[in-house]
This record gives sequence, structure tokens and C-alpha cells, in this order.
Amino acid sequence: MDFLNYPEPLADLITGLSRLPGIGPKTAGRLAFYLLQQPQVAENLAEAMIRAQREIRQCSLCCNYTDHDPCPICTGEKRERTLLCIVEQPRDVVSLEKTREFKGLYHVLHGVISPLEGVGPEQLTISKLLGRLEGVQEVVMAMNPTVEGEATALYLSRLLKPLGIKVTRIAHGLPVGGDLEYADEITIARALEGRRQI
Amino acid sequence: MDFLNYPEPLADLITGLSRLPGIGPKTAGRLAFYLLQQPQVAENLAEAMIRAQREIRQCSLCCNYTDHDPCPICTGEKRERTLLCIVEQPRDVVSLEKTREFKGLYHVLHGVISPLEGVGPEQLTISKLLGRLEGVQEVVMAMNPTVEGEATALYLSRLLKPLGIKVTRIAHGLPVGGDLEYADEITIARALEGRRQI
Repeated sequence: MDFLNYPEPLADLITGLSRLPGIGPKTAGRLAFYLLQQPQVAENLAEAMIRAQREIRQCSLCCNYTDHDPCPICTGEKRERTLLCIVEQPRDVVSLEKTREFKGLYHVLHGVISPLEGVGPEQLTISKLLGRLEGVQEVVMAMNPTVEGEATALYLSRLLKPLGIKVTRIAHGLPVGGDLEYADEITIARALEGRRQI
Repeated sequence: MDFLNYPEPLADLITGLSRLPGIGPKTAGRLAFYLLQQPQVAENLAEAMIRAQREIRQCSLCCNYTDHDPCPICTGEKRERTLLCIVEQPRDVVSLEKTREFKGLYHVLHGVISPLEGVGPEQLTISKLLGRLEGVQEVVMAMNPTVEGEATALYLSRLLKPLGIKVTRIAHGLPVGGDLEYADEITIARALEGRRQI
């Protein structure tokens, strides 16, 4: 990448933007020029970035991102404290909350076990999870249906079952609005496997 | 867009990111979580944004973005001061400089005449252009080949020709590596029109 022709502060801005995932040098250049033309947008964004860094931390209970510790979900009075849903990332909590179907608590692992990437159980928030199981009757595994997600769910279920906790897994199957014709074999196999009486 | 479930500083960050061109709420969410996980990237980027806002201004001569006024091109000793190339945007200067073919000076309009968007000649840097024509023998129009770009070039050439300045236009034609089969009719017509003896 040759930014030699840009003045240094502009080159630094382009470099900074191109560090973001999915943003290449061309897009970074376009964004940088946009930011120079829209000082208010740039100022608000820089402030939001600094403020988020300063104020967002992990909830000491569920490890979700929050600006109040413990987070509003962990302190929610209407939450069922016997039900715990384990997810990979904070954004998964938002996806689940949007359904308004789940009334229990969450636990965010901040990753999955992945030997290839050097992530073992000790890099995740598993020790915190084990410390908050008192009174929990059911743990729902909501990891993504990837090899690493499945392996992590298996690892955790082996830890939790001996403690007398019911361990469940969210269903895999055809997405609503999906089409058998276009679904892959593994999804269809899982959908068959998980069939229920109607 | 429902960011109700995000803590406020995170929702603000997502909103700020989704103000950028080409970045929708989904991508903004992905970027925001990435920034929270990479504090160093976020810090550098916020600093670069603030620094660019503070240090980058328009060159008082050519109106290009610069951190030194006048800019290095305007003060360059090897630049031909009789030749002036007019472009729409600062990024166009970079595109032209990369060719290492043009040795004259530039003038950045910061837009094109566009009645639909309420941009008239007075919103562009045309008065500054008219103030720096002393000694200029040739002006090269390098606006984009759009309706607005053409109209702006025509408007400027009518201003400049009476002053005895030679006005030229960069060539339109088949891009190098292009293919006649896939070129549009207007480009081919322009390529024919601009044919040269070999």
C-alpha cells in the first residue's frame, strides 16, 4: 500500500480504518475522505469509540458487555435464576433477547475452544461459569453449530452433567422460511434427527 | 433499528459507525464488537480521526488536503507552474500523482456543478482558481466523465478561454486491458472520436 502521496495525518487515518475487519485500503480511503468532509460525524464517532472503551466492561457475573456491573439482565427481577444460557459472544445475547422468548440468565464465553487457534478452556470464562451454578437447574447450550461450537458444548456438558444439572442444546434444523431444496444435507439430517410429535 | 438491548455507550458506537457510507447496522455492530475486543486498534483509530480533523486543512492555493500550507505540490520546486490540472476531489490528485506522469500543479474543486443537489459555481473553489491563473498557459480538465463533470468542464472552459489560456480535457476511451466487446457504446464512440495517428 502506497500512501506516500497523502499527508501524514490522513495516511494514518486510512491505515487505522483499514485495520477494521472487511475494510480494505480502497474503502478506508473513501471513509477517510468522508470523515474529513463531515467533521461532526468524525467527532461523534471518535468520542463514541473512546467512551465505549472507557465505560464498557464485562459483567462480573455473566461476562456480557455492560456499562453497569452487574448488568441489567443479571440484576433483572423477572429473570428465572434456575435457567442459564451459554453463548459464544456478547452479540449472541442480543440475538436471543430480540426473540423475547428466553427469560433465564446468560453466560458469555467470549470464544470457543479451538486448539488450532490456541484457545483452550482456560482462555474462556468457564471458571466464572462454574462459580455461579448454585441453584441452576438447566443450562442451555447456544453455541454456533460449528465444529468448535459443538466441541465446546460437549466439553461443558461433561463438566455440568456430573453436578446434576440438566444440559440442553438449542435445536438445529430448517430455518423458518427456508426451503428443503436449498438446505444442506447436514442441516436436513439434524432436522430429521430433532423431529417432534405434532 | 433496535439497539435497546445494547448498553448505551455501545449503542452510540454502533450508531456512529452506521453513519459511515456503505456501513449498515449489521456491519456497524460487527465493527463495534471488534473495536471492543481490540482496544489498541480502537484507540489508534480514534486518535487518528481526531488528529486528521485538527491537522488536515485545505491548501490555500490548490485547495487539496494538506497538513502544511501551502502543500508540498504547490511548493514543489520541480513543478511546472504553467500547467494546471483541475480535479473534483482530493483523492483524484492521488490517482493522478500515482501515474508520475503529470508535473504541473493541481486545483481541487471539492465537487462539481450540480443544480439538482444545489451545488453552483459559488460552492466550489472556482474563485480561488481564477485568482491563481497568472503565468498559467494550459489548464487540463480531469473531471469524471459524468454529466455533472462534463458540465463543470464546459463552464470552466468558457471562463478560461477568453483569458487566452489553452484548455484541454483528459482523453476518454477504452481503458488499458479493456475489451471492445464489453465496453459501452458511449465509451467506444469517445474512443473513436479521440483517435490519433500512429
